[in-house]
Amino acid sequence: MRISIIRKAHFNAAHRLFKPEWTDEKNREVFGICSNPNFHGHNYKLDVKITGELDPETGILMDLKTLKELIEQHVEIYFDHKNLNLDLIEFKSKVPTAENICIVIYDILRKVISEQLDIHIKLSETPRNFVEFPAQN
Amino acid sequence: MRISIIRKAHFNAAHRLFKPEWTDEKNREVFGICSNPNFHGHNYKLDVKITGELDPETGILMDLKTLKELIEQHVEIYFDHKNLNLDLIEFKSKVPTAENICIVIYDILRKVISEQLDIHIKLSETPRNFVEFPAQN
Amino acid sequence: MRISIIRKAHFNAAHRLFKPEWTDEKNREVFGICSNPNFHGHNYKLDVKITGELDPETGILMDLKTLKELIEQHVEIYFDHKNLNLDLIEFKSKVPTAENICIVIYDILRKVISEQLDIHIKLSETPRNFVEFPAQN
Amino acid sequence: MRISIIRKAHFNAAHRLFKPEWTDEKNREVFGICSNPNFHGHNYKLDVKITGELDPETGILMDLKTLKELIEQHVEIYFDHKNLNLDLIEFKSKVPTAENICIVIYDILRKVISEQLDIHIKLSETPRNFVEFPAQN
Amino acid sequence: MRISIIRKAHFNAAHRLFKPEWTDEKNREVFGICSNPNFHGHNYKLDVKITGELDPETGILMDLKTLKELIEQHVEIYFDHKNLNLDLIEFKSKVPTAENICIVIYDILRKVISEQLDIHIKLSETPRNFVEFPAQN
Amino acid sequence: MRISIIRKAHFNAAHRLFKPEWTDEKNREVFGICSNPNFHGHNYKLDVKITGELDPETGILMDLKTLKELIEQHVEIYFDHKNLNLDLIEFKSKVPTAENICIVIYDILRKVISEQLDIHIKLSETPRNFVEFPAQN
Repeated sequence: MRISIIRKAHFNAAHRLFKPEWTDEKNREVFGICSNPNFHGHNYKLDVKITGELDPETGILMDLKTLKELIEQHVEIYFDHKNLNLDLIEFKSKVPTAENICIVIYDILRKVISEQLDIHIKLSETPRNFVEFPAQN
Repeated sequence: MRISIIRKAHFNAAHRLFKPEWTDEKNREVFGICSNPNFHGHNYKLDVKITGELDPETGILMDLKTLKELIEQHVEIYFDHKNLNLDLIEFKSKVPTAENICIVIYDILRKVISEQLDIHIKLSETPRNFVEFPAQN
Repeated sequence: MRISIIRKAHFNAAHRLFKPEWTDEKNREVFGICSNPNFHGHNYKLDVKITGELDPETGILMDLKTLKELIEQHVEIYFDHKNLNLDLIEFKSKVPTAENICIVIYDILRKVISEQLDIHIKLSETPRNFVEFPAQN
Repeated sequence: MRISIIRKAHFNAAHRLFKPEWTDEKNREVFGICSNPNFHGHNYKLDVKITGELDPETGILMDLKTLKELIEQHVEIYFDHKNLNLDLIEFKSKVPTAENICIVIYDILRKVISEQLDIHIKLSETPRNFVEFPAQN
Repeated sequence: MRISIIRKAHFNAAHRLFKPEWTDEKNREVFGICSNPNFHGHNYKLDVKITGELDPETGILMDLKTLKELIEQHVEIYFDHKNLNLDLIEFKSKVPTAENICIVIYDILRKVISEQLDIHIKLSETPRNFVEFPAQN
Repeated sequence: MRISIIRKAHFNAAHRLFKPEWTDEKNREVFGICSNPNFHGHNYKLDVKITGELDPETGILMDLKTLKELIEQHVEIYFDHKNLNLDLIEFKSKVPTAENICIVIYDILRKVISEQLDIHIKLSETPRNFVEFPAQN
């Protein structure tokens, strides 16, 4: 009896899309106004989906309070009110695109959630742009 | 030409998470404030997704008015303004967790919708917590 | 320079619309299915609007963290996962209609927020029904 | 490293569900008030999901500005403020049901987006009715 | 004790902005693509706000079921799946702009709701455009 | 016949709450994590409400396309993908709190919209925090 639960979370952060090994012109060409030097920011919204076997005794897949606290501790507190380029070690060598932020969050949660449970992340950067990882097909 | 349609619905109900065969302490430990003795409640929101072969003549998968009425008759009227623990036979021996409510709704609709159509239920219990059944992977 | 800030909050509770001094028939006639004996429930959403003079030095009307904590402490924790009829003293002699809940929340916050600030409450009981107090005209 | 991005878009259009080769009675019987002769309309909302391999150098799946412009040019401008039955050649021989509109949009975008990328369309016709194509699993 | 309640409703309709006494050029100049000859349409959303004195005995301003039915009967059924220009007598001599639709709905409800209650209408034509009548101070 | 129209807009920006004439300790004490040195950011959402006399001939208060373009030109392009503290002259001597941003937007639009029309701004900084100016009472 495989089932999924989804918990929503959010954080606010600054970033810019910028590769230090490229010229400013190339950054501007590839990333547009998202490479503006003084940063801009977003309210990131997050759907964390957990999939696995339902426990028939409790009718629960995974304790929602535990899931909520894991997301708070490892994602919300870590990303909230930060500058992704300057404050987070994960983006020293990676451009903080929505795609990369989504994968970084997946990797962080993958380490603290039981391997018997699958994880899927949906991240919105603006009300019109979203990323999902891993891709479902 | 397989396609899906989704119809949204909702109902308001009271419940508590409680297993009568457990002590109050164990219920409180596993279910937290959700086991408060006098019940609490939610506005449950429902996405019913139906998947199957499109009828090329009408350009319709399944008549939406029929789907709407089946959901009203078998789910909305049955659950709305009810106490899930006390009023619904399905939860006499099952804890009314969001996971179990989602599966019960799936089972109810499975009996009244053609077997040639797949059903998928997404249930939200609060604006931040959702369940999906069956799991898509 | 008068300005308003709004903070959103929410809680989940059970209730029924019922006047003990009336017969069951009269309760059913006036309150309909909302008077069902075993209770039902809602995800209540709350907009607390605070209005007053902006502090020109800080550019702040009222510290949002303080407002958030006052709402948590006096409203969210007090109402969340409760049965309004059975657990809250305010509804011993008052029917917990959305209108009365909205006024009770106003009265609670009025006691803990500076008199120099006006308060306005918007409460949603379902995605389609809202109450506002005091009326703005 | 397969990942998905989603871009939201919308357009407003008039339509009626009507098959010219059927009698008015049969149209009314199958399509109900959606076959009213003078048309009605909707704010259609669109989620275009693109899935493929992430470019590890840029951290980007597909340039969002390009995606936004392709949707604007080929879908939003083409459908917006139009009468689907009278103004669009695609619906000369096809009933403009939500299912058929969704497939037509898929076919339009399939021609202008790289074959190495998968496309998935979610279309809402009203806040309660949605269609997805192609069906997932 | 003045208080307000709000009930949400919606309908789907076709329209065009067009004054028959003007030339097509003048209509196009003033109303833009909204004057396209074959109509376009919207999902209109409606907030009906009712303001008055709370009944201290019931804790109710106005019975919500009555309000819901008045809106259904006089607004939703009357406007839904219609062509505002061709099917509704109110727009024979008035352009069906969002402003005029909002005032027409106000006038319709004003006739069927007690004079002791104030009415305020908020109408959305698209997710980004709204009208409110009467204007609040 | 006074009526209001509302147009929604949005922009993404970075900021920090910081008064240069204060010590870092005092900034941290008053503004909390919002004073983090490397900035953070938000998706700001904006409701611009315009109030005035309806033109009875066109049924229009103010041309929505004109309003949309004024907001785009003077607000969206000016604020979007910017660092409010570093890039905008308005915040050289003013802390970019949500309250001050709301007033700055009001002042910008007040200069380009006819004096016969009233303006009211609602700004959301996060999904839970909003500001309104001028205060309505």
